[in-house]
Amino acid sequence: MPEVADPPRGFPADEFEARTKRAQALMAGQGLGAILLTTEAELRYFSGFLTQFWQSPTRPWFLVVPAEGKPVAVIPTIGAECMGRTWVEDIRTWPSPSPDDDGTSLLAGTLMDLMGSSDRIGLAMGPETHLRMPLNQFAALKERLPGKLWCDATGILRGLRMVKSEREIGKIAHVCGIVSGVFEDLPEILHLGMTEQEIFRRFKLECLSRGVDDVAYLVGGAGPGGYGDIISPPGSRRTEAGDVLMLDSGAVFDGYYCDFDRNYAFGSAGDAARYAYEVLYEATEAGLAAAQAGNRACDLFNAMQGVLDKAQDQSLAEEGAAASGGEVGRMGHGLGMQLTEGPSNTAWDRTELVPGMVMTLEPGFAFAPGKMMVQEENLVIREEGPLLLTRRAPPSLPLIG
Amino acid sequence: MPEVADPPRGFPADEFEARTKRAQALMAGQGLGAILLTTEAELRYFSGFLTQFWQSPTRPWFLVVPAEGKPVAVIPTIGAECMGRTWVEDIRTWPSPSPDDDGTSLLAGTLMDLMGSSDRIGLAMGPETHLRMPLNQFAALKERLPGKLWCDATGILRGLRMVKSEREIGKIAHVCGIVSGVFEDLPEILHLGMTEQEIFRRFKLECLSRGVDDVAYLVGGAGPGGYGDIISPPGSRRTEAGDVLMLDSGAVFDGYYCDFDRNYAFGSAGDAARYAYEVLYEATEAGLAAAQAGNRACDLFNAMQGVLDKAQDQSLAEEGAAASGGEVGRMGHGLGMQLTEGPSNTAWDRTELVPGMVMTLEPGFAFAPGKMMVQEENLVIREEGPLLLTRRAPPSLPLIG
Repeated sequence: MPEVADPPRGFPADEFEARTKRAQALMAGQGLGAILLTTEAELRYFSGFLTQFWQSPTRPWFLVVPAEGKPVAVIPTIGAECMGRTWVEDIRTWPSPSPDDDGTSLLAGTLMDLMGSSDRIGLAMGPETHLRMPLNQFAALKERLPGKLWCDATGILRGLRMVKSEREIGKIAHVCGIVSGVFEDLPEILHLGMTEQEIFRRFKLECLSRGVDDVAYLVGGAGPGGYGDIISPPGSRRTEAGDVLMLDSGAVFDGYYCDFDRNYAFGSAGDAARYAYEVLYEATEAGLAAAQAGNRACDLFNAMQGVLDKAQDQSLAEEGAAASGGEVGRMGHGLGMQLTEGPSNTAWDRTELVPGMVMTLEPGFAFAPGKMMVQEENLVIREEGPLLLTRRAPPSLPLIG
Repeated sequence: MPEVADPPRGFPADEFEARTKRAQALMAGQGLGAILLTTEAELRYFSGFLTQFWQSPTRPWFLVVPAEGKPVAVIPTIGAECMGRTWVEDIRTWPSPSPDDDGTSLLAGTLMDLMGSSDRIGLAMGPETHLRMPLNQFAALKERLPGKLWCDATGILRGLRMVKSEREIGKIAHVCGIVSGVFEDLPEILHLGMTEQEIFRRFKLECLSRGVDDVAYLVGGAGPGGYGDIISPPGSRRTEAGDVLMLDSGAVFDGYYCDFDRNYAFGSAGDAARYAYEVLYEATEAGLAAAQAGNRACDLFNAMQGVLDKAQDQSLAEEGAAASGGEVGRMGHGLGMQLTEGPSNTAWDRTELVPGMVMTLEPGFAFAPGKMMVQEENLVIREEGPLLLTRRAPPSLPLIG
């Protein structure tokens, strides 16, 4: 069914070995005896453990990256077979769920084993992270490890994951390519009068038919002359002539996301929406021009914001509109194993762009009261400049019907 | 496209009012001045806030249930419009992500406002829960609320969510019905020689075409005479005659899951697999007979385990096989807004079954070395006995081709 040959699934062991060694070099710099990982993306990054079983909140899962050697898995028995197919060799299991000790003593013992004389355990505690284990269990774990110091490993993990390998970029490029094709063909697939729910369903079917594994994220909406909300599920209203539709999709191939959107007008578009679209197109061009290795995430923001500021001055938009990033809070971000990863394209994020970073550019424009528009593209930073992974949106608002 | 008329989406305000009042009665019993909620299911349960935006880990989201009155949302500005369509009226926002104070002071102030003289804040800290905010942010929040005592609210939240309203049951029944139809038709849809990846894709397309919103969870696999792993993504191996295939699906309608599986043999099935299937069918029948209001979750486990123990004595299975729940750790669980919810069908879970609980029965049987089988059905506990929400699997292992 897929149109394009899939890139290989999974990664050879050297990918995980390289990730682990880079982590260990950074851990040594901070004197960490181990890093404890608890979330899906963290575990998968260092082990290759890929399963939708994370949808179940019942069981905690742990991976420990020691100062030397391979990561050690401390997981429910139900995952032993699946983890056994990864490069991880030391897999310690307990039958979960267990009411009295749901892996706590096994994990504490493993950390003691692996840490030797070190007293510093790394854990993700900073922005965009969470601890995926019950707070009571974490308290019990700390009690079993007296004298150990829990240190924030967010910077190490974020820094590693921001810069993608060629294999990772290949997976993201693949899903971006498939979804670009679906977006390009939407004017032939959709028609006036479909409800948002029908549009969303059709889009998902099309993406799946063409080879994505899942459409894990799809938001958007349609409204007369524009839309006012960019995170909602679809409604039951039938599209009407003059509606502007936006779909923003995070489809997945082999555990890697795309994250971009496209806008369409049904029948014809009002002047304000057409103007907003062209402003955003220009803002994205400015973002692309700034997406150079050595620049910073804030440079992407400033480049795009500069276009929006200028547009506001010249705005054809109705009174009361604000030409701004609006309510999104940023104009794009990193992208990879999660729909959003660091860095953030904001005025304050001074993360340096380096080759291998996969980023979105997502300027937003509040062009009339209750009406906003967003556009988004995905790219990878290369030595020679940005390489688009999505096929560029058309320069003018495309029409359906 | 859907075959069956959809039940209404969303809930009227009285649903959320009833949930909130029940929570507040329980909170009064524990002297809680407020409960702080941070996860998708918790926020949605009390507000109706439904969005796939949770796929992005970037921003924390908060809902506070006060001792009296409606919940108060403390959320990123990007969610204000979507939250504004729920029954929640008091929506406090900040532009997120924000590097220095990503909602912490706004949340602390809100808790101070709402708690009056109470010093007890409820938070989910127990089994199957996690805190969806950075640990560093939680530490900063606690610092801003000196003298407040953080109390485990897991029991309150779990107890409320276990017992579903008729509207919730209607959504689960709807998705169970659609997916039952897909499973029944699979022998006509699949054919020998398809890869697991092709089978998974076809299954998802069929479910979406027939009206589910998403297939958020799909695991399983196929192998000669049986399978050994029940949580993995699909492989690229082509199915062969004699393979046993299992698909376990959590499809979603309006934010509510089904969670059940079906087994098939390609061409013909070996004796061991056919025997295992019939044992599991019988175990499920025993579980159904025990699914009576007033019984306990452990009674479901014991009823199913009794059949498996007896089968082990009489087993035709190869030497070395253990007739047991194997590596799953339990034989079913609650089901609703999440793929798995409390209670757990285990020997130790003494949760009383009450009308309105939606449960899975999921006996598992390790019938040969490296070969296991699971079967799963979904039901609701009624005064008069269990009502199946899935259409019962056939009593003998069905064949494909």
